[in-house]
Amino acid sequence: MELKELRDRIDSIDDRIAELFEQRTLTACEIAEYKREHGMAILQTGREDEVLKRMQEKVPPELADGARLLFSTLMDISKCRQQQLLTEVKPFVPESEVAAPVVGAVTKGSYTADACEKFCGEGCKIKYYTDFASVFRAVEDEAVDYGVLPIENSTAGEVGATYDLMLRHRFYICRSTMIPINHVLAGVKGTKQSDVKVVTSHAMALKQCSKFLEEGGYACEEASSTAKAAERVAQLGDSSVAAVCSASCAKLFGLEPIARDITDVRDNYTRFIMISKDLQIPKKASVVSLCLTVPHTAGSLYRILTRFAYCGLNLCRIESKPMPDALAYLKDNAFEFIFYLDFIGSVKDENVMKLLTGLEREMKFYRFLGNYEELE
Amino acid sequence: MELKELRDRIDSIDDRIAELFEQRTLTACEIAEYKREHGMAILQTGREDEVLKRMQEKVPPELADGARLLFSTLMDISKCRQQQLLTEVKPFVPESEVAAPVVGAVTKGSYTADACEKFCGEGCKIKYYTDFASVFRAVEDEAVDYGVLPIENSTAGEVGATYDLMLRHRFYICRSTMIPINHVLAGVKGTKQSDVKVVTSHAMALKQCSKFLEEGGYACEEASSTAKAAERVAQLGDSSVAAVCSASCAKLFGLEPIARDITDVRDNYTRFIMISKDLQIPKKASVVSLCLTVPHTAGSLYRILTRFAYCGLNLCRIESKPMPDALAYLKDNAFEFIFYLDFIGSVKDENVMKLLTGLEREMKFYRFLGNYEELE
Repeated sequence: MELKELRDRIDSIDDRIAELFEQRTLTACEIAEYKREHGMAILQTGREDEVLKRMQEKVPPELADGARLLFSTLMDISKCRQQQLLTEVKPFVPESEVAAPVVGAVTKGSYTADACEKFCGEGCKIKYYTDFASVFRAVEDEAVDYGVLPIENSTAGEVGATYDLMLRHRFYICRSTMIPINHVLAGVKGTKQSDVKVVTSHAMALKQCSKFLEEGGYACEEASSTAKAAERVAQLGDSSVAAVCSASCAKLFGLEPIARDITDVRDNYTRFIMISKDLQIPKKASVVSLCLTVPHTAGSLYRILTRFAYCGLNLCRIESKPMPDALAYLKDNAFEFIFYLDFIGSVKDENVMKLLTGLEREMKFYRFLGNYEELE
Repeated sequence: MELKELRDRIDSIDDRIAELFEQRTLTACEIAEYKREHGMAILQTGREDEVLKRMQEKVPPELADGARLLFSTLMDISKCRQQQLLTEVKPFVPESEVAAPVVGAVTKGSYTADACEKFCGEGCKIKYYTDFASVFRAVEDEAVDYGVLPIENSTAGEVGATYDLMLRHRFYICRSTMIPINHVLAGVKGTKQSDVKVVTSHAMALKQCSKFLEEGGYACEEASSTAKAAERVAQLGDSSVAAVCSASCAKLFGLEPIARDITDVRDNYTRFIMISKDLQIPKKASVVSLCLTVPHTAGSLYRILTRFAYCGLNLCRIESKPMPDALAYLKDNAFEFIFYLDFIGSVKDENVMKLLTGLEREMKFYRFLGNYEELE
């Protein structure tokens, strides 16, 4: 048979499948309506398993896997459609943004000041805390308007710590951005590069500038953070000791950049988020973040993702993390992982809201983390 | 209408869909066979878009999303079936395991020695390197039989660094394990807890033991790693200074545990991998790891996962990372993310091999990272 004929045959099969799909979805919606009227649970796993088993047996054995996947997707599509029909959603009423905010952050991240200025404008008021947990608490206690935290790092980082804390505290993400890591060599006022004998910084920062440091023949001394290194250089007030840190960190401690662009590896960055106590959705919000637990069984994550695929949403980030301490109460064999999902979308889109409302109702653990703007 | 009647109607629709599904899949396989005989490309995106558009228009507008998802899944199932039929796979011929191996690792992780012993037996020979990159190089140059590296950490860590290096070096994972973080207070021989005035360790370790340290009223001093802290205590030989580190780290530097179980937070761990230059698949291998790039368009990750769902495979870990430096040559707007996937399975399963072979052929970037045993 020729290609044209085979394709015509597929087309005519597809026409009939489309008709049956329509009938099936309408009937499934009638069933959902019936159940709702009679106060019955909409989801009945027993019935679903029965359908899958029957269909797998109906087709030749080599097509059983395909039949299982096809019918589970068909049933998921029905559920998505029912959710669109039956879910009532209230629009979010987000708080308005704070005009001249006070921002909480830790110095440790060392590019934090850059992130704060990118989020809230140059010269914004930053209160520094010793650790990430204190920043979350300051946001909760309204000691600050916003918190700024590093969440992802192209080389190493505190990512895990922030994620863990995210589950222990109530907050919303209202902005995120990537800050390129671009170290400078910084010294006390008037230092010339030829004066410098010793360079101090965090081990990771020293490594990132190893070419520059080797060429200059400097002695290196490790510090616990780039900010601590800069602080020490400022305290010593000695032009033979310089620090590797960000330009803004140098400024913070009254140091001057002696050499710029000293990082070997291009393309290092830290991603920061800005958080608020109450939900704020900026006008240009384009990303939605959420986290949820997924049963540790074959296909369970896939079937959650089917709902996003149904809405045509583009998942732009997905992370699975082992269940942290904060969620120990959920820990059993079936729930070992927690997933963080980011997708391009808006809660002002009714279908997105219905999807999220459905997930919130059905998932053992679900958290909406915000609908925010990703600053370029 | 009653529930029973509605369900009978669904069943009869499902029977007809199953028949059409069988006919469709067989016809699609005939097309694939035809194309192969005529040397044509199997995947033709234009035709696929045409089918999706036609089907979305065929159903009422409110079902268009469902129709798109249904028919894209139907076509994906056909592709999976064709791949099963047409892909020829060669069985892996893995190297056998080394009996008394030399293992390369960095001290910095401080629980590394525990991981090495868990992987290769107590007293196994460990060569220490200053950084992760040197461990990868030692494996490549056959200076060691295996490398041991931290890859995931429940609190903070070097995860990003290891992931980035994973793309720059050729290797296979042959084992992985979780090592619980359980610090001890360690001092020189004969130290009593009442002698200790100053405690030194990595900032993270000090924080993890903050309750114990506050109660004891110790002065704390930060060190660049727990191993460096232990080394310093050993060099000082002074019973007033103790280190917070792992029991095995204490042993390594000839220190004695003064107090055990001093960590406040339970459930901290570091996940380690053992890597080899040539592929080794242990008898009890149960996890497959791979990484691949996915186009940054709606549904593209979902459609990759459809293939795993078709094979009934359970994805147990999924991570998206921004494209690292090492893959800069792939960077364009369409390829911004790299995905790491772990699933429960074996390359001895022919369907798994066919799935992997298909991905390798089609993906712009694809790496098989190993089929290994996860030690309890």
